[in-house]
Amino acid sequence: MSLRERVYHLIEPDYEPGRIIDVAIIILILLNIIALILETVEPIYNLNRTAFELFENFSLTVFAIEYVIRLWTITTNPRFSHPVTGRIRFALTPLAIIDLLAILPLLLPPPSVDARFIRVVRILRIFRVLKLVRYFRALRLLGHVIADRKEELVSIFLVLLILLALSSSLMYLVEHEDQPEVFTSIPTTMWWSIVTLTTVGYGDTYPITPLGQTIAAIIAILGIGMFALPAGILGAGFVEALAAQRSEEPEHRCPHCGEWLDT
Amino acid sequence: MSLRERVYHLIEPDYEPGRIIDVAIIILILLNIIALILETVEPIYNLNRTAFELFENFSLTVFAIEYVIRLWTITTNPRFSHPVTGRIRFALTPLAIIDLLAILPLLLPPPSVDARFIRVVRILRIFRVLKLVRYFRALRLLGHVIADRKEELVSIFLVLLILLALSSSLMYLVEHEDQPEVFTSIPTTMWWSIVTLTTVGYGDTYPITPLGQTIAAIIAILGIGMFALPAGILGAGFVEALAAQRSEEPEHRCPHCGEWLDT
Amino acid sequence: MSLRERVYHLIEPDYEPGRIIDVAIIILILLNIIALILETVEPIYNLNRTAFELFENFSLTVFAIEYVIRLWTITTNPRFSHPVTGRIRFALTPLAIIDLLAILPLLLPPPSVDARFIRVVRILRIFRVLKLVRYFRALRLLGHVIADRKEELVSIFLVLLILLALSSSLMYLVEHEDQPEVFTSIPTTMWWSIVTLTTVGYGDTYPITPLGQTIAAIIAILGIGMFALPAGILGAGFVEALAAQRSEEPEHRCPHCGEWLDT
Amino acid sequence: MSLRERVYHLIEPDYEPGRIIDVAIIILILLNIIALILETVEPIYNLNRTAFELFENFSLTVFAIEYVIRLWTITTNPRFSHPVTGRIRFALTPLAIIDLLAILPLLLPPPSVDARFIRVVRILRIFRVLKLVRYFRALRLLGHVIADRKEELVSIFLVLLILLALSSSLMYLVEHEDQPEVFTSIPTTMWWSIVTLTTVGYGDTYPITPLGQTIAAIIAILGIGMFALPAGILGAGFVEALAAQRSEEPEHRCPHCGEWLDT
Repeated sequence: MSLRERVYHLIEPDYEPGRIIDVAIIILILLNIIALILETVEPIYNLNRTAFELFENFSLTVFAIEYVIRLWTITTNPRFSHPVTGRIRFALTPLAIIDLLAILPLLLPPPSVDARFIRVVRILRIFRVLKLVRYFRALRLLGHVIADRKEELVSIFLVLLILLALSSSLMYLVEHEDQPEVFTSIPTTMWWSIVTLTTVGYGDTYPITPLGQTIAAIIAILGIGMFALPAGILGAGFVEALAAQRSEEPEHRCPHCGEWLDT
Repeated sequence: MSLRERVYHLIEPDYEPGRIIDVAIIILILLNIIALILETVEPIYNLNRTAFELFENFSLTVFAIEYVIRLWTITTNPRFSHPVTGRIRFALTPLAIIDLLAILPLLLPPPSVDARFIRVVRILRIFRVLKLVRYFRALRLLGHVIADRKEELVSIFLVLLILLALSSSLMYLVEHEDQPEVFTSIPTTMWWSIVTLTTVGYGDTYPITPLGQTIAAIIAILGIGMFALPAGILGAGFVEALAAQRSEEPEHRCPHCGEWLDT
Repeated sequence: MSLRERVYHLIEPDYEPGRIIDVAIIILILLNIIALILETVEPIYNLNRTAFELFENFSLTVFAIEYVIRLWTITTNPRFSHPVTGRIRFALTPLAIIDLLAILPLLLPPPSVDARFIRVVRILRIFRVLKLVRYFRALRLLGHVIADRKEELVSIFLVLLILLALSSSLMYLVEHEDQPEVFTSIPTTMWWSIVTLTTVGYGDTYPITPLGQTIAAIIAILGIGMFALPAGILGAGFVEALAAQRSEEPEHRCPHCGEWLDT
Repeated sequence: MSLRERVYHLIEPDYEPGRIIDVAIIILILLNIIALILETVEPIYNLNRTAFELFENFSLTVFAIEYVIRLWTITTNPRFSHPVTGRIRFALTPLAIIDLLAILPLLLPPPSVDARFIRVVRILRIFRVLKLVRYFRALRLLGHVIADRKEELVSIFLVLLILLALSSSLMYLVEHEDQPEVFTSIPTTMWWSIVTLTTVGYGDTYPITPLGQTIAAIIAILGIGMFALPAGILGAGFVEALAAQRSEEPEHRCPHCGEWLDT
């Protein structure tokens, strides 16, 4: 086995010998998330500014090395065996794009010193959490569920948009005159529709006229079920996928590359 | 094939040659909805008043032409083949009525210049969104689901009304004295019942006496399930119908008129 | 057929010849409910005080006559054929007790002229709505469902009470010091628990300390499902019962007394 | 039968002869809970301080005697028959640990007279409610359900944590500038995420910018289903377990020790 092949197996998840490296990367990702979350707590950030910056630079370096190694070793995987096109095709897989985005600040130094822009970039590092998808099958399952139910979800979103347009327009019609500053326009009223139809009900906007309350009641009783559908489909699909995975054990692994075959 | 027949196939949805016309009408409907929504945002409306009016007149003209063509060509459809009674029967189908209502402002010039009346009419144009039902099977499915479960829905609504009367009366009984301005009367208290039993919970009205809170707790724990039923039945039926439609592919189309047979 | 038998069949629901009488009683019950609801709207009540009183006296008279006729004719029903014990056993069925309670003000003149007492009695007339149970099978089904699932419901209520005690005590422990006027005592905190665990969330009481919010989050994520169970069981059972009833048509009717056998 | 064996059967639940003792202990536990709840209502506590203290001392004594007897007699149970290791192994079962914790104040006199510490200890007595688990099979079932679905629950919690991190970061990003005192930091924003995704919606924090409201709407529509999963899995599993238990009657009891074999 060449060095490249040995490194590939070390860095690939779910493969015994390199488990320690997997765990180290997982811990680094988690620490990144925790650091990002704590950075937004001002007193903590002010006291540890240098530590946070050092940790960020360290993470960027590790993630960059990880990315380069993956790109170098991926040709061991039969699916990406061609030295040029295989590497390009790998670089375009969702997980590789996430890996690249995680080290973007290294590649594209901020074009300006605009404080606000830097802040946005800093918080968007949260998407590094998606690097965890490689290591946890539960997360991959969720991705499969979304892809699987795409058709139903699109159909339902079409219905939701029409319901949203209808209910917001009706509510705007009956409540605008009595609460012009709350139901300012139909786009504003859409916030009411969503807060009501998901049953969140913050209480920042609600109808106060008897007619508005009656229409709101009918909309709520009939519409809540439709807005619960996307969340319900994803949830049910996920539970199903977990159960299927559980009963299918021992899990299938490719005998050639040692990769998980999670359908 | 006569001109009438050729035009019929062009304008009928889901039929290959006229796909461009379908898409054009769908886009026009969507633009109508977007225009209506944006019109209610005052700064946008004030700046583009003429554009909005021009677009409305254009839409009215197109929808009117569409309606006339449909009425002229419908006799090609074997179900409405009689030149007189067939056209009348078609004009009384729900979709044709929606088409007619969409061009109503053209037929019935506003009987008054009452600003408020004009505003109501303008917003009611939102029901043009229902013209989309012709083009999307997901929307027709929802209609079928409602028709299919009519019996159950009526039974449940009867139960809901009785629960509503009971819970509102009890809550009025125990809370009216302590919050006379909130639980003013039983009709007012019904708003509390609906907001609570749908679990929206805006927080505009809630019991404050220990007895009221105890009764509210019991009503909530037992009643929430009943108010979730209509929405749940519609939602479950819709998901079922989508799944059935998916598995039934290739879909059935009438060999004579080219229309979809979506049961 | 004797007069008693003929009257019995006229007044018994679901029996063709007396349908008009059934409909008349149903309308009278509904008018009673509407009157009771409108009475609590002060301006309406003040303007129509005499009309409301006349209608109440009329209703009491009709319901009293109805009760007496039922008691007289019930011996036609084979289940209550004995002239004395049959009538007593009938008088103790839930529906007959509801009928009796509906005319209670006639039998027990108010022992005092205490305004508050009279108000309570007046609103409790809402339970006349339960007289509708005799005429609508959907309502009887709901009763059967509750009786059927009694065992599960009791088990779940035990669990709910323990969850309620635990979550209220914990929340009181962590929030009492910071919000002594909101989380005054554990009984007060129970209101928070119920409002949260049913996901109603009025927003009148909520934790503000980080520890309290963390515990509230865990309680909510784990506990919401348990509080949704009673409502869900009743709802699912009701839908099931409606479906079963639908498929069992033509419905079974006793060949002797013409009564519905809805199991 | 030796005295130890006879006492064992008297004190073990679900065994006919000692039913009175079971009921007495259940009542004592319930009275403990009620006392604890009422103690937090200041006027009640101030008036009955001595009574509460006497009752607490009485309960401690009874629970201590109960614990000692259980430890003494447990060797009758074949699973814990060894006089030394059997007793130690029994003492480490969850139910025995709860029993021990219930009498902890007797064993560890408060190390300080710090009023706050005493208050915390007093309220933590609420966990005595878990002593009821021994006597009610519905409660044991819930424990089994949690143990059974541990794997799924852990997978889902991982997904929830990632969703929580993502949604809180995004919302902090778009709302922090407009509501710096509400969306102070990402940890603070997590409270918003949980309140929204469980659909509780207190209304203490909510987005006010159009962008924030749009992102909140998408998060809510897609994420609510995921946060409903743990509660739904526990609830569904519990209902299933109740149904299974019901159909399995007559229940299995070990012929040797008289204990319930609830799988």
